[in-house]
Amino acid sequence: MSRLVVIGGGGAGTGAATIAIQTDRSMKVSLLTEFEDIAYSPCGIPYVFGKEIDSFDGLFLQPAEFYQEMGIDLRTSTVVDGIDMGKRVVRTTTGEEFPFDQLIICTGWEYEVPKVPNVDLNGIVYIKNIRRAMEINKRLDEVKKAVVWQAKPLGVELIEALPHRGIETHLVDSGSWLLSDFADADMMEPLQQHLVDELGVKLHFGTELLGFEGQDGKLTTVRTSGGDIEADMAFLVANMKPATRLAKSIGVKTGSTGAIVVDNHMRTNVDGVFAAGACVETMHGLLKIPVNLIPGTYAYTQGRMAGANAAGGDEAYRPVYVPWGLGAKIQVGGALVSENLAKATGMPYVVGKATGITAARYHPSHEKMQVKLLFDPSNRQIIGGQFTGGDGVKERADFLAFAIRKGTSAEELATMENVYSPPIGALGEPIAAAAKNALTQLGPR
Amino acid sequence: MSRLVVIGGGGAGTGAATIAIQTDRSMKVSLLTEFEDIAYSPCGIPYVFGKEIDSFDGLFLQPAEFYQEMGIDLRTSTVVDGIDMGKRVVRTTTGEEFPFDQLIICTGWEYEVPKVPNVDLNGIVYIKNIRRAMEINKRLDEVKKAVVWQAKPLGVELIEALPHRGIETHLVDSGSWLLSDFADADMMEPLQQHLVDELGVKLHFGTELLGFEGQDGKLTTVRTSGGDIEADMAFLVANMKPATRLAKSIGVKTGSTGAIVVDNHMRTNVDGVFAAGACVETMHGLLKIPVNLIPGTYAYTQGRMAGANAAGGDEAYRPVYVPWGLGAKIQVGGALVSENLAKATGMPYVVGKATGITAARYHPSHEKMQVKLLFDPSNRQIIGGQFTGGDGVKERADFLAFAIRKGTSAEELATMENVYSPPIGALGEPIAAAAKNALTQLGPR
Repeated sequence: MSRLVVIGGGGAGTGAATIAIQTDRSMKVSLLTEFEDIAYSPCGIPYVFGKEIDSFDGLFLQPAEFYQEMGIDLRTSTVVDGIDMGKRVVRTTTGEEFPFDQLIICTGWEYEVPKVPNVDLNGIVYIKNIRRAMEINKRLDEVKKAVVWQAKPLGVELIEALPHRGIETHLVDSGSWLLSDFADADMMEPLQQHLVDELGVKLHFGTELLGFEGQDGKLTTVRTSGGDIEADMAFLVANMKPATRLAKSIGVKTGSTGAIVVDNHMRTNVDGVFAAGACVETMHGLLKIPVNLIPGTYAYTQGRMAGANAAGGDEAYRPVYVPWGLGAKIQVGGALVSENLAKATGMPYVVGKATGITAARYHPSHEKMQVKLLFDPSNRQIIGGQFTGGDGVKERADFLAFAIRKGTSAEELATMENVYSPPIGALGEPIAAAAKNALTQLGPR
Repeated sequence: MSRLVVIGGGGAGTGAATIAIQTDRSMKVSLLTEFEDIAYSPCGIPYVFGKEIDSFDGLFLQPAEFYQEMGIDLRTSTVVDGIDMGKRVVRTTTGEEFPFDQLIICTGWEYEVPKVPNVDLNGIVYIKNIRRAMEINKRLDEVKKAVVWQAKPLGVELIEALPHRGIETHLVDSGSWLLSDFADADMMEPLQQHLVDELGVKLHFGTELLGFEGQDGKLTTVRTSGGDIEADMAFLVANMKPATRLAKSIGVKTGSTGAIVVDNHMRTNVDGVFAAGACVETMHGLLKIPVNLIPGTYAYTQGRMAGANAAGGDEAYRPVYVPWGLGAKIQVGGALVSENLAKATGMPYVVGKATGITAARYHPSHEKMQVKLLFDPSNRQIIGGQFTGGDGVKERADFLAFAIRKGTSAEELATMENVYSPPIGALGEPIAAAAKNALTQLGPR
């Protein structure tokens, strides 16, 4: 009987354990997680804070029994202390040993705590574990002023959520606009205006976090390069780094991103050891460089692939193109490259822009849809883009990532066909309009 | 000075005249339409009936002055009587003559009036001209019972609209489900249930229209193979045929669909005569047969192309894949081929189906999304599909048509990436799930 140990109970770990036992029913599968819970969606947390979602209950996707009934030896609140590759056992902090033939490392990511004074004050919080999030949620009714540090996706979700609790919300970020890692200033402008004008959020861009001050161990002030901000609570959306300590301890190689290097079967360089999810790096299909992916959809898919292969399967992962998107009333999304990234890296590009609508202009459901597309002038192919609109951003970002993957020319996008139906689609598709705009700059073939 | 005459003031004609004069400012462009108005959207009419759109005002896209100021010699209420190719003039019923060097025929489509008794009774109406629609709209407040004949897109829009006016609404159709020309029964089921359960529509499928009865010249009864239906008004969504009388009179060739044959520059077989819009036939990219397209988005694009080429341009139209979609609370859409069509024509296919959600399952905005995809088992490529959902059908239908055009395999769709963000996108994309389902039947490569 083959023995598989999976370390980590997030999307990658649960996916790996589940598919492994489904692939090989005779396998003994142990799934170890340091947390009290299994299979919950941390992505939903900001929406509970904003009362868009009623309660945390729905965020628990499966109870522990679900995995146990499947025949998985699930261990919650179980912290792995070390891996003995000689004996091929995983040892926990309580001294328990889990022998394995195959091992899948799904240790995910952790926050890089900023190196600033007084970062341990009561009221300085991180969003990750759902139990901690439940405690934060209870405290939110007493919070009057909050600071969110860094305009990453979770930061944007938080500044959209907190005003709905009546909290004066500040964003502090050293960049110059929201999501500046992968979005452009012009495309974020409508969302920023919405946050400021409708929700009263104070945006402090180009501003460094310097530290915190408190009284009786409790946060009172966030110190920034732009001055002090009074706050009862500070949400640190810190940089994330892959959690690779355990993997490195057994000689697993990490790459340029700091994450674990795996082949397209999710195998590490150590025999019988797989890895998946936010702790590994994945090849970007367009940029041809490894990237370290955080979104749960990748963790889950990679975990399932590692599980299948660990159980004797032969499934190959492929390079990624990573559509992204978020928002509610104003949605934003897209896929790399952004104009900002192209500029920063000296990548040649031509931009096509258009503002369209999502339904007939005489239908009350119509909303504005701004599109910006980037093309490679050498082969006229799409290399990235962004959308800002009221609705339909997610589907367009998926389309865009797929078009990049398929090697699509500006001519092909300019002639894409679209549904025309007054309540759901306008005469012209804004993507096609943006591509036509790019054609005027690309010139004739 | 080159003289261009455009016959027809719909999407194709207005597009043709506009782009021609923009391409060659020295051209004398005359635009003749038999109707009182120019540039309005008939597609919006059912939504005014249903009071989803406030008034007809918004449906007028441009006033006549817009075209006149552009320098176009626009003639409304002008019926063309004949074309003299010897003198190269278009003659109107009032005897006026319009000389031309180039001619663009955009005569659109007309209804085939069903050959049944008493089809001329007061209360039997067609939806096409906006002025007639305004008169119908005024009468709707007095209508208690209405019959809509044929479950084509306009018919479906009407049966969704009329119940909102408190009208008992019946649908009569000889097919067995809604939109049976291009949709499958299983995918239309949720929309049919919504119409019956929520809106109280009576669906009479497999039912032939036999005729009408009236009193004092006014409709009282619709006679069908399933029995008589009392009605104050009957909407005849009759079959549409291309309006080709004028074209044929000058030797323009029509094809297998009955519509005008044009090359990829919208040129007919007669020198200097172009045609565009619902009166021409267009090559279907997948089926490799000519189709006669009605949607306005094609008319407009083709018209613009004919106008550019008539003014000396060199623009090539391409085969089409025709995404379709409609609906409000329940949306349906897709692209040919349907399973029904594949069966009827003996085309080999494999089906992949999935039911997914449009947002995280714990987010209140999530709605069901059913996906059905058809693949060619010989090359594993996508050949059609349909979507039934609450939202995002239009964007997915556009995506599908593009994927068919790009020659996309089931493997590629099964591994498509998707945005995961609780309010706008679920962990998995239903398109990918349906493709995975198809892979289980396609078997290994």
